[in-house]
Amino acid sequence: MSASDAAVQDRYPDEGAHCYGCGRLNPEGLRIRTRWDDGETVCRFTPEPHHKAFPGVVYGGLIASLFDCHGVGTAAAEIERRERGDEGGGPDGGAPPRFVTASLQVDFVRPTPLGPELEVRAQVREVGERKVVVDETLTVEGDVCARATVVAVRMPEGMGREAKAPSP
Amino acid sequence: MSASDAAVQDRYPDEGAHCYGCGRLNPEGLRIRTRWDDGETVCRFTPEPHHKAFPGVVYGGLIASLFDCHGVGTAAAEIERRERGDEGGGPDGGAPPRFVTASLQVDFVRPTPLGPELEVRAQVREVGERKVVVDETLTVEGDVCARATVVAVRMPEGMGREAKAPSP
Repeated sequence: MSASDAAVQDRYPDEGAHCYGCGRLNPEGLRIRTRWDDGETVCRFTPEPHHKAFPGVVYGGLIASLFDCHGVGTAAAEIERRERGDEGGGPDGGAPPRFVTASLQVDFVRPTPLGPELEVRAQVREVGERKVVVDETLTVEGDVCARATVVAVRMPEGMGREAKAPSP
Repeated sequence: MSASDAAVQDRYPDEGAHCYGCGRLNPEGLRIRTRWDDGETVCRFTPEPHHKAFPGVVYGGLIASLFDCHGVGTAAAEIERRERGDEGGGPDGGAPPRFVTASLQVDFVRPTPLGPELEVRAQVREVGERKVVVDETLTVEGDVCARATVVAVRMPEGMGREAKAPSP
């Protein structure tokens, strides 16, 4: 597997890999994956038949989930690239930095057809000291079905460890 | 069951009751329910253990799903109340009007603890000819964990019928 084939979520440490959206170790989850593709990031996902809103239409909450996890995955990938100078999977094998979602804005442009593979592409708009702003577009067979903006922030200390829950 | 105990989703026609988020006839779905409570609407939901983002924290995509379905359910309930003059379950037994999500904005205020029941309350901010704007707040044991705004619009003709998919 080349560096650009690896997903950023493939390299999260085991104790932080149980996210329902993108954790590779959550057997009931969606296993959303983010990887580099030609200078931006891409996530490809084919919904299950039960992920419907109405007959023939993908459920909006699933679309929001794709934008959410692909957005924070993109933030992690971008900061990793800036800090390490590569696109992941490099020789040091370090884990990517972790981000959480501060806000998510989704605009549903047209009904997303249920059946074909969905493609979500993301670009980093802004990088601040703690936050990364990511713009995303979901297309199906070339048609734009939804757009989103995610504001991702560095994960607070103590979150994401299996042994202890964060304070409420 | 009194009028205010019934969920708006309980009265959607069978052919439009398969939404992964709120369809009562989707056996794999979340079955989100919206009902009137003291002049606003409420949705109560207890996530499953696998609905995690990190240990002890609810997955953000699930939260977005709650806001999404409860927002459009609230839009339907509000328009039904205005047009029929009751809060559903009235003597005419008609189905609520149907809405779809045009946009969804979620602000994650603090990590949402996984375990207790989540409460989402919604208020209608604005009603236009075709759209309804709904503000929502998610609390857990009294703490505000997330806020959202949903813009819901009347469902386009032809959507939501089992027999045919909408044009893409």
